[in-house]
Amino acid sequence: MNTSLIINDTIVALATPQGVGAIGVIRLSGDKAIDICNSVFGTKSLKKKDLNKQKSHTIHFGVIHDGEVIIDEVLVSLFKTPHSYTSENTVEISCHGSKFIQQQIIQLFIKHGARMANHGEFTLRAFLNGKLDLSQAEAVADLISSNSASSHQIAMQQMRGGFSSKIKLLRQNLIDFASLIELELDFSEEDVEFADRTDLKKLVSSIQRIVQRLIDSFEVGNVIKNGIPVAIVGKPNAGKSTLLNVLLEEDRAIVSEIPGTTRDVIEDELNIDGVLFRIIDTAGIRETNDIIESIGVEKTFEQIKLSSIAIYLFDAHEITSSELRLIVEDLQPHLHNSQLVLVANKIDKEDLEYIKREFNEFPDMLFISAKERTHIDEFKKHLVDLFDSRIVNITETIVTNSRHVEALRYTNTALIKVLEGLNHNVTGDFLAMDIRQALHYLGTITGEISSDDLLANIFSRFCIGK
Amino acid sequence: MNTSLIINDTIVALATPQGVGAIGVIRLSGDKAIDICNSVFGTKSLKKKDLNKQKSHTIHFGVIHDGEVIIDEVLVSLFKTPHSYTSENTVEISCHGSKFIQQQIIQLFIKHGARMANHGEFTLRAFLNGKLDLSQAEAVADLISSNSASSHQIAMQQMRGGFSSKIKLLRQNLIDFASLIELELDFSEEDVEFADRTDLKKLVSSIQRIVQRLIDSFEVGNVIKNGIPVAIVGKPNAGKSTLLNVLLEEDRAIVSEIPGTTRDVIEDELNIDGVLFRIIDTAGIRETNDIIESIGVEKTFEQIKLSSIAIYLFDAHEITSSELRLIVEDLQPHLHNSQLVLVANKIDKEDLEYIKREFNEFPDMLFISAKERTHIDEFKKHLVDLFDSRIVNITETIVTNSRHVEALRYTNTALIKVLEGLNHNVTGDFLAMDIRQALHYLGTITGEISSDDLLANIFSRFCIGK
Repeated sequence: MNTSLIINDTIVALATPQGVGAIGVIRLSGDKAIDICNSVFGTKSLKKKDLNKQKSHTIHFGVIHDGEVIIDEVLVSLFKTPHSYTSENTVEISCHGSKFIQQQIIQLFIKHGARMANHGEFTLRAFLNGKLDLSQAEAVADLISSNSASSHQIAMQQMRGGFSSKIKLLRQNLIDFASLIELELDFSEEDVEFADRTDLKKLVSSIQRIVQRLIDSFEVGNVIKNGIPVAIVGKPNAGKSTLLNVLLEEDRAIVSEIPGTTRDVIEDELNIDGVLFRIIDTAGIRETNDIIESIGVEKTFEQIKLSSIAIYLFDAHEITSSELRLIVEDLQPHLHNSQLVLVANKIDKEDLEYIKREFNEFPDMLFISAKERTHIDEFKKHLVDLFDSRIVNITETIVTNSRHVEALRYTNTALIKVLEGLNHNVTGDFLAMDIRQALHYLGTITGEISSDDLLANIFSRFCIGK
Repeated sequence: MNTSLIINDTIVALATPQGVGAIGVIRLSGDKAIDICNSVFGTKSLKKKDLNKQKSHTIHFGVIHDGEVIIDEVLVSLFKTPHSYTSENTVEISCHGSKFIQQQIIQLFIKHGARMANHGEFTLRAFLNGKLDLSQAEAVADLISSNSASSHQIAMQQMRGGFSSKIKLLRQNLIDFASLIELELDFSEEDVEFADRTDLKKLVSSIQRIVQRLIDSFEVGNVIKNGIPVAIVGKPNAGKSTLLNVLLEEDRAIVSEIPGTTRDVIEDELNIDGVLFRIIDTAGIRETNDIIESIGVEKTFEQIKLSSIAIYLFDAHEITSSELRLIVEDLQPHLHNSQLVLVANKIDKEDLEYIKREFNEFPDMLFISAKERTHIDEFKKHLVDLFDSRIVNITETIVTNSRHVEALRYTNTALIKVLEGLNHNVTGDFLAMDIRQALHYLGTITGEISSDDLLANIFSRFCIGK
């Protein structure tokens, strides 16, 4: 750990979002946090109340005042070191939700010796003081930006240390292994082998397999974090935009059920039962109808290539079963990792049975009417089921952070070198070098190994006040 | 007070602004607030922690969970009845600043028996439970929207009960007066006069004078709340837009000094030393230059009519002292309540002394160069001084709420009737009728007299969560 970052001055920032609300919370952390608050805090009648004499985790009503001028009536929450988020003395001031008041209070604290916090500096201090490791700290940011049940669950698991403990276990195994090799090196004159090469090979390859699985999980993790890419393709008259609008509208309706909570809707993101889907729109699939004149068009293949789920939507009355067979054959070579879903649109009650018979060679086909909103729920459930079948078990450790996957890839490369070394019976000192590499990269994930640059880079992405 | 509004179900809302931030605070209030939180709160390892057994004004770290699914790690603040904002049991949950998490937690509380709060319902409950009176409750909303030191100070004084106690004192005096009159009515058969008519007249007219002064203060209060209207007039080449830009830019620079605090700048509002000024722009004074060809133009007079401060800006090299004298004479009849400030622009060091001599008949004239930013601070200080000299003493009670001034006007009318009645020696029952009217209207200000409609109207303007 780098000591240059260990600092104990007192920082201050607004911890709640900007804007008008009922209340805002200002956070002070550092050696002098309580003293600084003390110097501007008083009872309602401006009498002194010594916060140093109060217990940790207690709340005190009073006023923040600049001399005789009362800035606000507030609630002050006390957290005494080490029982706070940062592990330092921390005071949280819950004031009225006015920008003017918040600015006044922050400026007053700065006048009394606090400093404006940098991005993520509270969490950085929590990390430097050993309250959480680096991957847990990163999960805090992921948690704040999570916008679906699945991304939330992964971030929560990571913040609570699930991922860290897995990495730490791997690292401990490697350290045990390394110490055996290093012991051999100490006695290298005597040409002894403390570590059985076959056992070593087993251990390293089991570690390498776990690392590889974590790397593989990133694809899934990334998809969960950013939304599962879905391509909706089909002829212009198939009803793609109607379907998309129906899906988006329902999504928005769900979100706005809670009064006072509105969401900045990002065009063409869909949250179905807590799973985030992202509609791929390479060339304005919704705006222009002249692109996909036939299934053979390049744009369609491009969309499918980028998707995890490809929906082929068609007018049930316009295509025969044998035509559809040809279309599916055309699509097949472009599917790669994408799952194809055939959706017959524009069905109506009268001819549903007839249409189902026509397409009975496609057992997984869905029958909907986007316009009439028929079977839309089944369609959505099917999308979520496809997601579930891909992920299998979301409680398994899933990597969502590109920094982590990069470190894991370096670890993997080093481990593969170790394995090759073992196969070619290289000497212990060469093995030790590669193992140290692997240990180094694993250590950067949880922050056992870190640099100022790395930390600055990670925490600059946080908001001020976190 | 109306019993139909006395309710004790438990309400929930987000108390902090929407948007991504470090933390968000969710507020629960009502009989079952602690029980509801209890049913979804546990320690970090999901063990039960009975919040009912904890003291008021304490903070508890743990998780909010829906069965096995952990929604967030949170801090729970406990406020037990009657020691809370609403006077009911209240729980504040400080969670991560993610909309997704906040929605999940609010929905979970609703599932466990809470109800989404209406606008201002927490403050409404505080009022119904006698924690604050109506004018104090209204000051809470003013406080949140205050954006200058002076509007903030008035709202703060009102919230802390300064205005209320003044109104209550007036009302008490009137009640004392009324009881004397009513006593006379009880003994009306005996034709006695308990109350000396001369003393009564003195008392009522002193009350009426105070009410009149409060009504008059509204003009000032309104100006403080919405900004002091300033007209900058002058010939097209005088440098009006340069001056305005210089002032606006400096204002914005001050505001953005604190990292992370940005302000939605409203065009042409100026905050100088905590005093809000509003530039009057009746016909695009900045955009078009062809309007004010000469000082005699109608638009100029219109702007001056709407202003509290009229700045006449001119090019110091283009106008002679005698020309300026004529211009001031032209302006004078249009000034009404507006104070005229003469500002010589485009001065430079070389000829400043010469120019000052030229205009020595105007002792209060300011000399600036908007382009070179010379003497801009003096100019700003002068504006603030003009404000101070108008307001005299901001700590005097100032009415800023149009509902209050309306009630005061009705009170005033009734009091004048009482005075007339006393002058014409009308009988006690007529006096009593008018006094009751005055008492009624005074009572509506602090909410001693209120109706469901009135309360609904007042609190609907609050944000949800307050």
